Amino acid sequence: MMGGAGPEWHPASKYGKVYVLRLGHRPQRDKRITIHVALVARAFGANGFILEGVCDDSIERTLSRVNRCWGGHVEYECGVKGTRYIKGWKQNSGEVIHLTMYGVPFNEVIDEIRMSPRPKLIIVGAEKVERIYYELSDYNVSIGLQPHSEVAALAIFLDRLYRGSWTNIEFHGAKLKIIPSDRGKRVEWRGEDEC
Amino acid sequence: MMGGAGPEWHPASKYGKVYVLRLGHRPQRDKRITIHVALVARAFGANGFILEGVCDDSIERTLSRVNRCWGGHVEYECGVKGTRYIKGWKQNSGEVIHLTMYGVPFNEVIDEIRMSPRPKLIIVGAEKVERIYYELSDYNVSIGLQPHSEVAALAIFLDRLYRGSWTNIEFHGAKLKIIPSDRGKRVEWRGEDEC
Repeated sequence: MMGGAGPEWHPASKYGKVYVLRLGHRPQRDKRITIHVALVARAFGANGFILEGVCDDSIERTLSRVNRCWGGHVEYECGVKGTRYIKGWKQNSGEVIHLTMYGVPFNEVIDEIRMSPRPKLIIVGAEKVERIYYELSDYNVSIGLQPHSEVAALAIFLDRLYRGSWTNIEFHGAKLKIIPSDRGKRVEWRGEDEC
Repeated sequence: MMGGAGPEWHPASKYGKVYVLRLGHRPQRDKRITIHVALVARAFGANGFILEGVCDDSIERTLSRVNRCWGGHVEYECGVKGTRYIKGWKQNSGEVIHLTMYGVPFNEVIDEIRMSPRPKLIIVGAEKVERIYYELSDYNVSIGLQPHSEVAALAIFLDRLYRGSWTNIEFHGAKLKIIPSDRGKRVEWRGEDEC
């Protein structure tokens, strides 16, 4: 696994922006899955999380609380129009990667994506993704040609993009930090305030 | 990435059993997350999925349907008593790996776990896991010392256990098979029956 250096090193800095765009969130049905997607985005080294179509306070609150307690910063935006957001991203020299079980196996394209210095927008759909997103994306990438989970797909994609170096992220400003333990829970408290 | 050989090659065969034990499932709240955990277990190469404490028909139905349509076979059991199941596993020479953000970073123990030929029971908790599970496990392993998702944690753990070779699993008896496509959806239909 490759590492990074410096207290504020972040693997996304190589590309400027690595954002996750979550499509088709239905606040009742998808709340917990979307929270998992957002937390995976943060923990595995995305620096932005965008909720398409709607806003959902519980997603924003969870992500803010995790940033506040565990450090780091993830840009958050909601209620955007998906196709317009993607077109804007591409106009700003960014590239768009749609994770879908129907796409090209990640092993075939990940080196090319990793080596391109362009900002990366990673699209993660809920139940059904409209055809236009397949057409607008620069890459339609599958993480295994089997039904499983957009949460797992995002984690594996970011893991491969960064060659595992997300484990070295120092989340700046963390109030809580885990001290690894082979049996039990050890948490170091660094802040003065509640989090 | 390492590969396998033969039409029915499965990465779990090296260990006999690689099972996932899902703790603390609450049918209302956790249904969709637990389904994602079960589908990740299957797609990333576990050959058993055990639901602790309760049964939930919707989980079993989904897993059966996916096995039927997409092939392969994952043993399913539900309503087991967690501590008793773990003790039985260990009596049958198996080892137990509990995925928790408080544990030892996976990079430090994964080689040892991979090289041991013993059957592996991977414990994946919901909200809060009782202390006894930390004590009964042979390994408490963290997939990043940050809050994120048990779905992602399981995917990364299995990915590392198998060195990525889960992508080569041939799911025996599949009625549906995806033909990778750079734009759109192509699915090959192999069965005579509905699935």
